[in-house]
Amino acid sequence: MRDVAIIGIGIMKWGELWEKSLRDIFVEASLNAIDDAGVDHIDSMYIGCMSSGLFVGQEHLGSLLADYLGVRPIPATRVESACASGGLALRQAFIEVASGMNDIVLAGGVEKMTDVGGNEATYALGTAGDQEYEGYHGITFPGLYSMIARAHMHKYGTTREQLAHVAVKNHKHGSMNPNAQFPFEVTVEQVINATMVADPLTILDCSPITDGAAAVIVCPYEMAKKISKKPVVKIIGTGHATDTIALHSRDDVTWLNATEKAGKMAYGMAGKKPDDIDVVEVHDCFTIAEICVLEALGFAERGKGGEMAESGMTSLGGEIPVNTSGGLKSKGHPVGATGIAQVHELVTQLRGDAGKRQVENARVGLSQNMGGTGGSSVIHILEAE
Amino acid sequence: MRDVAIIGIGIMKWGELWEKSLRDIFVEASLNAIDDAGVDHIDSMYIGCMSSGLFVGQEHLGSLLADYLGVRPIPATRVESACASGGLALRQAFIEVASGMNDIVLAGGVEKMTDVGGNEATYALGTAGDQEYEGYHGITFPGLYSMIARAHMHKYGTTREQLAHVAVKNHKHGSMNPNAQFPFEVTVEQVINATMVADPLTILDCSPITDGAAAVIVCPYEMAKKISKKPVVKIIGTGHATDTIALHSRDDVTWLNATEKAGKMAYGMAGKKPDDIDVVEVHDCFTIAEICVLEALGFAERGKGGEMAESGMTSLGGEIPVNTSGGLKSKGHPVGATGIAQVHELVTQLRGDAGKRQVENARVGLSQNMGGTGGSSVIHILEAE
Repeated sequence: MRDVAIIGIGIMKWGELWEKSLRDIFVEASLNAIDDAGVDHIDSMYIGCMSSGLFVGQEHLGSLLADYLGVRPIPATRVESACASGGLALRQAFIEVASGMNDIVLAGGVEKMTDVGGNEATYALGTAGDQEYEGYHGITFPGLYSMIARAHMHKYGTTREQLAHVAVKNHKHGSMNPNAQFPFEVTVEQVINATMVADPLTILDCSPITDGAAAVIVCPYEMAKKISKKPVVKIIGTGHATDTIALHSRDDVTWLNATEKAGKMAYGMAGKKPDDIDVVEVHDCFTIAEICVLEALGFAERGKGGEMAESGMTSLGGEIPVNTSGGLKSKGHPVGATGIAQVHELVTQLRGDAGKRQVENARVGLSQNMGGTGGSSVIHILEAE
Repeated sequence: MRDVAIIGIGIMKWGELWEKSLRDIFVEASLNAIDDAGVDHIDSMYIGCMSSGLFVGQEHLGSLLADYLGVRPIPATRVESACASGGLALRQAFIEVASGMNDIVLAGGVEKMTDVGGNEATYALGTAGDQEYEGYHGITFPGLYSMIARAHMHKYGTTREQLAHVAVKNHKHGSMNPNAQFPFEVTVEQVINATMVADPLTILDCSPITDGAAAVIVCPYEMAKKISKKPVVKIIGTGHATDTIALHSRDDVTWLNATEKAGKMAYGMAGKKPDDIDVVEVHDCFTIAEICVLEALGFAERGKGGEMAESGMTSLGGEIPVNTSGGLKSKGHPVGATGIAQVHELVTQLRGDAGKRQVENARVGLSQNMGGTGGSSVIHILEAE
């Protein structure tokens, strides 16, 4: 397998983009990535998208987006793993370049979520769970994650305030990200007293509904060293694993098996351990998710994720800054784009281009992108040249 | 890149399977493939599915199907390219094994289409076209293909009877396939006089709505030679290309650019030309499609696909038997599964296991799987040991 590097990244301002269509935002982010890479063509592309069928009544994104990006007839493949679709697009691009099949491959992610109303969006997101055993009985994702939160509080003594600290930190980070959907700060009190969604989670514990896209360009590492005018960032590890899609089928609803296993795969491939990582982007679709993910990845001891959030360790300036982009919470969560945007932030950090939110001397970064309540998880570890 | 072979195939009886769910049929076909391969595990899997979101309200198939197949926590990735999703699943499995990332990989395809009514199914299938410029104005797939048919008749003198011959041949082949949805024979007169769907296409020119799944197991060729108890079938070429998603954007609506380009890619990789191919499975979603595809792949001269259909050359016993499985027309067209089922038929032929529909001395086979009106096309060339 050939070594693979990232030579270009592109994103756009996320939000409720009613004046733009899915194809518009994908093309905008992709052109930014191609421009950043300085390449004059791409050989192939992958698109992460969860549910363009339900959100905008459009499948066949490979053909559509290759056409609108002006790159047909190149191979273009959509991949889907619910909210982990973006991470998976990068993994497939990695495998294709590593295999020798193609050299310059774009991995993009996109979701246009605000063309439907709230009920339709909630239904579409619910298709990431088990429709026959979860959705049919009426539960939606805030409800599923609230049960994880309650179980974590019961089992480990995690507090309501500790959950809130995740949102406070991520909004603080997001306030420094010009592309974030909600770049404002919040306090612990505001989070706790916000509109209740699914007890104990308030609206400020939940990531928003977002329109957005992001893209990265990968190529063989040896080629990257020759052609790239920017610091080359190598993909040194990738991991992907699955768990039961239904939350009730798990032995322990507070433990993310797929994230643990994908993490071990990525750490093993990279020859790294949690202590070697300088900056982390994880899937904080709800505040409790960040806590559980950091435990499953070995950054916090089992059951201690809440204490870690409260301690400040995961803030900018702390021992291991997490979600410097603002995370899904503040930056927004266009589900198919999220996994690529996480990698966009890591590359920005590893290049030293993160401005006010720069992590000093960041050399190794880890991204974790999750589908459903943890039914799938995709992890990448990146290293600066 | 490592050489890759197919060591297991699995399918099931297709039809209106109201007593089975999407997960049931995928598991049934996959277990058949695993059993056929004689392996005790798989390392990773790909699932081709066009629109489980619109057909059964379920995304996140990687997690769901790895779970129900009993293979979690292995990586499981859904790919989508409308009706070419199955072919793409095999291509991704090929790339993953070729890369060295994993050894034993399942490529499956599935679609459960009859849980919704006809209008919803027509809408879901319409998302393979350009929703903003085609679907919005009310056109559906029979309408799009009827325009291709009319243009082909006008430009090349293709006749109504020639179109019918495609259906007659494929139903004759399908009558020998125990897994086919509609294993009955039809006559030219029956096709022409059947219920009109979109002039000139009658219902017997159209492939049906089907529930079905299929799966194959791939592994490195060197491993296949050691572990397989059945004739090893090597994947010697793969091609994938895109075209405009909207039919009206093409220079010539009778010419399938993506199929031509994917074909050139696959022929080039395999070191083969049309004359070297013994048996072919192509995407006859409508009778006119088979005619256009055979031209784009170089089996017929441009404009002569209709004459070829009438000549009997593409029938069992003819010079180049096409769609010995019955094709999408008679076997059925569960859109995400079709590309895998095509390969299932080729492997059956190349192993010499096709019984009454066996092509004598078949050693090299080609499959062509298409999305939309040709906006994407995926081609594989297989060779018996």
